[in-house]
Amino acid sequence: MSAPQSLTAALLVIGDEILSGRTKDKNIGTVADFLAARGIELREVRVVPDEIGEIVAALDAMRRRHTYVFTTGGIGPTHDDVTADAVAAAFGVPLIEDPRALALLLQRVAPDDLNAARRRMARIPQGADLVENTVSKAPGFWIGNVIVMAGVPAIVESMLAAVAPKLKGGAPVISRTIDVGNMPEGAYAAELALEAARHPEVSVGSYPAYREGKFANQIVVRGKGEAQVEAAVEAIQTMIAKLRAAGKDKYTIT
Amino acid sequence: MSAPQSLTAALLVIGDEILSGRTKDKNIGTVADFLAARGIELREVRVVPDEIGEIVAALDAMRRRHTYVFTTGGIGPTHDDVTADAVAAAFGVPLIEDPRALALLLQRVAPDDLNAARRRMARIPQGADLVENTVSKAPGFWIGNVIVMAGVPAIVESMLAAVAPKLKGGAPVISRTIDVGNMPEGAYAAELALEAARHPEVSVGSYPAYREGKFANQIVVRGKGEAQVEAAVEAIQTMIAKLRAAGKDKYTIT
Repeated sequence: MSAPQSLTAALLVIGDEILSGRTKDKNIGTVADFLAARGIELREVRVVPDEIGEIVAALDAMRRRHTYVFTTGGIGPTHDDVTADAVAAAFGVPLIEDPRALALLLQRVAPDDLNAARRRMARIPQGADLVENTVSKAPGFWIGNVIVMAGVPAIVESMLAAVAPKLKGGAPVISRTIDVGNMPEGAYAAELALEAARHPEVSVGSYPAYREGKFANQIVVRGKGEAQVEAAVEAIQTMIAKLRAAGKDKYTIT
Repeated sequence: MSAPQSLTAALLVIGDEILSGRTKDKNIGTVADFLAARGIELREVRVVPDEIGEIVAALDAMRRRHTYVFTTGGIGPTHDDVTADAVAAAFGVPLIEDPRALALLLQRVAPDDLNAARRRMARIPQGADLVENTVSKAPGFWIGNVIVMAGVPAIVESMLAAVAPKLKGGAPVISRTIDVGNMPEGAYAAELALEAARHPEVSVGSYPAYREGKFANQIVVRGKGEAQVEAAVEAIQTMIAKLRAAGKDKYTIT
């Protein structure tokens, strides 16, 4: 957050199916990777049900804090798809049947088959730009700083690709991972805190994983300056090697 | 939300590594499944960075709205583990070195190896109960209506099992899935909305998926009354069969 033109984003995942456990979300990871590669800092994610009041409240909280808010889910043809209604309400604009969106739908369905349910997918908040969907045509949209996407992961990827050239980009974050294997976090935590304090221009995280009854820990250094990241990585690798030489990796607790 | 003793929950996922894309979260799905099986409605999820201010703000918003708030992440020994500090701050209680937690840590590490970093894992907000961790001993804790767990998925499962007998339980939600195959949502959306309106005591969702270039849609009926769920399922199956007989599954758009 130190750069003057710091770009931040939030993601709003909309869908009862995530909260019920019926669907395991994949879009959070996809959007996180997408933004990190562009130097946009994802600061917050929320998951809310398909309810207009909950969606509006979350949108209003997030869109005032961040450069961009992305949403996934709730823009299909069924009765539980209420995202477009909620976004229009949040911005205080009418939800209109958009001729551009209708034309896109007609690329995939014959005019006689364009029933009322399918026409729901052409309802776009007035003033929004459309976001292309190369998978199934029904578009997402972009209004103010809010980018509204479908929930199906393949369509999310298509829509992210469509908006990518139009997003402001920051300095990409450089991330380096140091594998410390079974050395427990408790063996290096004090020294790592010192290194993190010595390198305030990068962020240093320690991430335990648990595989086959053993911890498999990694330290991650992230920052926007390559030289600063590399200096911190080198210092931490030296510190870990010293601890290993001193036999500090023999404890069994993290 | 109709039952008088309606139980709701929120989940707060704490960790820079989820927001950076470095780690793909698995705990949301695990907690969602766990709560659904117990009749506790997961109403909201948030993901925030390892920053005390962000954690306190999210906790304060969530714990006033829900029966339970679960958190994952940020209770290890390293400098980026600040969840215990944040929870103590949110409740306005001191963070103390808890003798019960120290005793648990000493089950896994020799007294001489219990350095300052490891002792961080015994820092518990005053007045909290401990939550057992059968994987690596370092406990979670439960204060007020907030249940604080580790981030490693295997430890989350261990901690959920530990708190399960102490949670209030609601009527479990019954969920039935109707596979509609390639029939596009647009072909049944209008009729499905009618069935949803005719069965207001259940919730009806339609969920598209996309596999090998084709949509593979499912309709999910959820509710607490078995007879009501079954009646809605039967009505929707009949409706889908009629549409299929009328050739409505031949369109290519959802």
